[in-house]
Amino acid sequence: MISFESDYICGAHPLVLKALTETNMECLSGYGSDKYCDSAKEKIKKAVGIPEAEVEFLVGGTQTNSVIISTMLSDYEGVIAAKTGHISTHEAGAIEYTGHEVLEIPQENGKIAAAVLKEYLTGYFADENHEHMTRPGMVYISHPTEYGTLYSKAELSEISEVCREYEIPLFLDGARLGYGIMSYDTDVTLQDVGKLCDVFYIGGTKVGALCGEAVVFTKGNKPKHFLTSIKRRGALIAKGRLLGVQFDTLFTDDLYFKISKHAIDMAEKLKDICRAHELSMFLESPTNQQFVVFEDEKLKKLQKKVAVSFWEKPDKNHTVVRLATSWSTTDEDLAELDKALS
Amino acid sequence: MISFESDYICGAHPLVLKALTETNMECLSGYGSDKYCDSAKEKIKKAVGIPEAEVEFLVGGTQTNSVIISTMLSDYEGVIAAKTGHISTHEAGAIEYTGHEVLEIPQENGKIAAAVLKEYLTGYFADENHEHMTRPGMVYISHPTEYGTLYSKAELSEISEVCREYEIPLFLDGARLGYGIMSYDTDVTLQDVGKLCDVFYIGGTKVGALCGEAVVFTKGNKPKHFLTSIKRRGALIAKGRLLGVQFDTLFTDDLYFKISKHAIDMAEKLKDICRAHELSMFLESPTNQQFVVFEDEKLKKLQKKVAVSFWEKPDKNHTVVRLATSWSTTDEDLAELDKALS
Amino acid sequence: MISFESDYICGAHPLVLKALTETNMECLSGYGSDKYCDSAKEKIKKAVGIPEAEVEFLVGGTQTNSVIISTMLSDYEGVIAAKTGHISTHEAGAIEYTGHEVLEIPQENGKIAAAVLKEYLTGYFADENHEHMTRPGMVYISHPTEYGTLYSKAELSEISEVCREYEIPLFLDGARLGYGIMSYDTDVTLQDVGKLCDVFYIGGTKVGALCGEAVVFTKGNKPKHFLTSIKRRGALIAKGRLLGVQFDTLFTDDLYFKISKHAIDMAEKLKDICRAHELSMFLESPTNQQFVVFEDEKLKKLQKKVAVSFWEKPDKNHTVVRLATSWSTTDEDLAELDKALS
Amino acid sequence: MISFESDYICGAHPLVLKALTETNMECLSGYGSDKYCDSAKEKIKKAVGIPEAEVEFLVGGTQTNSVIISTMLSDYEGVIAAKTGHISTHEAGAIEYTGHEVLEIPQENGKIAAAVLKEYLTGYFADENHEHMTRPGMVYISHPTEYGTLYSKAELSEISEVCREYEIPLFLDGARLGYGIMSYDTDVTLQDVGKLCDVFYIGGTKVGALCGEAVVFTKGNKPKHFLTSIKRRGALIAKGRLLGVQFDTLFTDDLYFKISKHAIDMAEKLKDICRAHELSMFLESPTNQQFVVFEDEKLKKLQKKVAVSFWEKPDKNHTVVRLATSWSTTDEDLAELDKALS
Repeated sequence: MISFESDYICGAHPLVLKALTETNMECLSGYGSDKYCDSAKEKIKKAVGIPEAEVEFLVGGTQTNSVIISTMLSDYEGVIAAKTGHISTHEAGAIEYTGHEVLEIPQENGKIAAAVLKEYLTGYFADENHEHMTRPGMVYISHPTEYGTLYSKAELSEISEVCREYEIPLFLDGARLGYGIMSYDTDVTLQDVGKLCDVFYIGGTKVGALCGEAVVFTKGNKPKHFLTSIKRRGALIAKGRLLGVQFDTLFTDDLYFKISKHAIDMAEKLKDICRAHELSMFLESPTNQQFVVFEDEKLKKLQKKVAVSFWEKPDKNHTVVRLATSWSTTDEDLAELDKALS
Repeated sequence: MISFESDYICGAHPLVLKALTETNMECLSGYGSDKYCDSAKEKIKKAVGIPEAEVEFLVGGTQTNSVIISTMLSDYEGVIAAKTGHISTHEAGAIEYTGHEVLEIPQENGKIAAAVLKEYLTGYFADENHEHMTRPGMVYISHPTEYGTLYSKAELSEISEVCREYEIPLFLDGARLGYGIMSYDTDVTLQDVGKLCDVFYIGGTKVGALCGEAVVFTKGNKPKHFLTSIKRRGALIAKGRLLGVQFDTLFTDDLYFKISKHAIDMAEKLKDICRAHELSMFLESPTNQQFVVFEDEKLKKLQKKVAVSFWEKPDKNHTVVRLATSWSTTDEDLAELDKALS
Repeated sequence: MISFESDYICGAHPLVLKALTETNMECLSGYGSDKYCDSAKEKIKKAVGIPEAEVEFLVGGTQTNSVIISTMLSDYEGVIAAKTGHISTHEAGAIEYTGHEVLEIPQENGKIAAAVLKEYLTGYFADENHEHMTRPGMVYISHPTEYGTLYSKAELSEISEVCREYEIPLFLDGARLGYGIMSYDTDVTLQDVGKLCDVFYIGGTKVGALCGEAVVFTKGNKPKHFLTSIKRRGALIAKGRLLGVQFDTLFTDDLYFKISKHAIDMAEKLKDICRAHELSMFLESPTNQQFVVFEDEKLKKLQKKVAVSFWEKPDKNHTVVRLATSWSTTDEDLAELDKALS
Repeated sequence: MISFESDYICGAHPLVLKALTETNMECLSGYGSDKYCDSAKEKIKKAVGIPEAEVEFLVGGTQTNSVIISTMLSDYEGVIAAKTGHISTHEAGAIEYTGHEVLEIPQENGKIAAAVLKEYLTGYFADENHEHMTRPGMVYISHPTEYGTLYSKAELSEISEVCREYEIPLFLDGARLGYGIMSYDTDVTLQDVGKLCDVFYIGGTKVGALCGEAVVFTKGNKPKHFLTSIKRRGALIAKGRLLGVQFDTLFTDDLYFKISKHAIDMAEKLKDICRAHELSMFLESPTNQQFVVFEDEKLKKLQKKVAVSFWEKPDKNHTVVRLATSWSTTDEDLAELDKALS
């Protein structure tokens, strides 16, 4: 049985595993103070194009969202996010666990609009009782979004501008950032993300690593004593090398971008196959996650041969499922899918 | 200048103050262990009609919401509330401060519908990934709501039934409960509230006390070691008598209900005055809070003589304001208002 | 039966109650924005001798400790306190509830020494792994301490100096500050406290108020958006006047100091009585709390006529109890005690 | 340069890495639902000798302590630990971050005594004001302790008995459990740990894994909806296989115990070398962590060739350092150390 269930069904990209193996017996200090972490940080800063950026590694996506948001917000602040944002719905209340409110605003296809954001902020400050309400202290967006969609450079710039007007940092969740950057249909580069955001992360778990996310603070704004804050959230690992070696490899010879590109190529072919089988797409996604509407009977048949992810039920007889490609998807997988759909 | 700004503009009902004065020099033990607390609890249990109920006193509304919700929820649970619920918007993230998510659902005029609640719960449990989402662990409603509206007995019963079906406690925020019970337009009694809810509170601050809310656990469900939990939230006061004496007075000779009735009588007269001046009501409120739409020019004139509360701006030239009556509103106040509107 | 159980056995000083009664029917805005709060703040600033100080009112002691400590500490910081400090032992983990560690250091008779404090801080920064430990971010002392003892001006100055050297704010818990200031055996004035501490509070609950503590930020260091932070901790009361009127009265015509002085006079007489009956004092306390060692048999007899507080058992046959005087203690009470001890 | 800095200086044991490589391209579901997690759990339950035990995997030690303690404690409870316990001092306040107090009790060489524990618990319940104090809700011990020492079976049984008498769960931090079990000087088996503790974990990070700890609930006491609680603490990783494959390998053919035994053999040889060089041991440690007292001059010389860990300064001219062996320590390393000490 083949699987398009997610982009984390396989282990690590072979080159990542090779690097872990080759460095395995080296004696290194713990907690991220090793040379591979240092090297990976340098490579990432270069790729982002901000020499003075500060980079830190964490283990997973929810952890990263929780650590960044809770260390950057002040006590009285909350974080604005789309109603469909990962932190709003699928992280089991991880932000609230840190004591902070997620201030949900309307979205379209997973994206928030600068105008909607501005309206929210204007409304907050115009309310005479706003000191009795959670103060907005950060804007969270995901790129690609939970629906695989992307912000255009213009859209991202507008959101960034609103944030600057209100002096609120913009945080971009890049759990799948590689797939966004390498989409056929984007004008947003990694450098743009660095310029327009105050903090963001480059996802490893879903783009070729066993685990790991690289957080980038772009404006000398890394929280003070960040290591202590990470530690007390249980998010500091002893063998920091595990993250350092992986990101060092991913950012050597553009591996991160090459494998992201591969996943995009595979996704475009997958879309062709869906079209050929006259399947209806739930929405237009230019990245590696594709949302397809199936008649329930047809889906049941497919699932005997292909693993996919349940997304939602638009009506009684149909189901939206997600098919994700990744660095590990092969042409053979696609051929099997094609056959299974026939 | 007269004021309809809120129902907490004056001190305490004179009889409450008299009792505080008369008992002032008695030596009593602290932390709620005095005889006035005991007596008040007995009277409240009798009024609610549940001899085995457990009653505790807290200082204010937000504190009460925060203490009840955070001690009754399990770690992995959140509380369902209307998007307009006090805990959702006007308590500065007090529930999130305790680590728990407020799960907002749609509302109408401040009220949630049993069908909407059921749909939410069904959807949660049907989602194959629901273990990655905050589990609903309580339903919060306010009665009267933040818009002064009331649930009918049938509506409340339906919500209560959904809660029982899903084994989730129903919590009723009764910061203004007296005004709800004594409305001309309700079939819900205090005994009904006791029967249909798992926990609720009888508001003192907005109904004649200097401060204080009486929490009622109706089903032997008071959290274990509740005093310790209250203490560590900074919510335990040394002179528990301050709350005990006040509630003992409010529940002697039906004072709580009589002064609530007075506020309702005043509110009905206020509505008549508004109608006479052809003012448009923002919505139909059967309780002591009235929401009136004003042309901005007219409002500015009024505010020179009468204090009211800003609520929201429905459009550029109009403002919705709240006028609240209370136990302290007089016929003279209403006459002044009438004059000011002319 | 007479009571020396605590300094919060009676209601409010009659003048406080009178002021609450006289202002009862005035219409005032809520949440501390009324004229009595304003007036009380001015009077307190004058008494402290710091015109630019910022004053806020909260309801009780544990709440005040919790609000101040948690809003002034950074995420990665904890608060240093004596092992016997109120926040260390008798507040049910209220500081930990806010996510922060209490860093306990050794004490003597409830007091910490500047040298011990300095040793702790030096040790922390000398430890090569200190980033893996909670960073000390505040020093908490109580004055009078939990044992009724007092810091001398020299001791307080030394502690303050260490704090400044390490750039850590000094917070003084003054739940019983009046009794400290008016002790026969102190050279510390209210102005000294203001000069030497970064933040402190003037206790009302135990010095003549029904409830209430007045927090004083002495260096323009009131946390930003403090009202929002108070609100989300459930510590903001609607009728802020309740606190404003009380403190306005307490700081009119030196009432706070006069009634504190009365309690001290009574305590000195109480000590004389104990001496006359050849009772052994657990330690030398120059304030209103006296700790007396009783043979258990003798204590049992006393408790039939006089209420006292259990403190600890130094051995099998003895018990230490606390006898507290206050503004409400009378010469008749002392005479009764004398008789009961015979 | 060779290193005895810690037991986490190298990557993973080669067999662990081999298993990760061999399973790398298998498509597996996420979040711990894969067959390797299942298999590892079965093997661990068998090794512990409790078929009905429940096993869960987490990433690191601090995270594991924080997740277990905060999900097993009730709101009003704290955890008892030695003053030198890892959670008390070296986890940057991770337990307090979850809102709970660490109740420190005296220790000797890192160990608490059943009698001291019992005295603490007796004292708590005898105190008439104990409801104003954090209720003890769990006992935390580490085995080996932070000083490398071990509890005897008799000591562990006595502590377990006190816990049962007070109905408080006993939690054993086994970050280095393998080294404890395989010590030459212990009568405590893995099965004993299972029988005597309510919950414990088998450390992977420090015993041959890249990362990972296996938590064992021995009495059907795994917290309800544990996955949701893990997720909201940011502690759930997408590729659960990373932990499953590693523990599956460690518990195949007794690898975990064999490599632990190797580290112990190396530690005994290391002790012989220290003795031969007439070095003074800070305390007697029967496990892989050895604490050696050095004259500062001598230490400086050594550190040019051998990496060790700073522990503490017993006086001006001496330093205690830690030398740790592990699965990766070789006879060559020891020979180098011997030479460097000459």
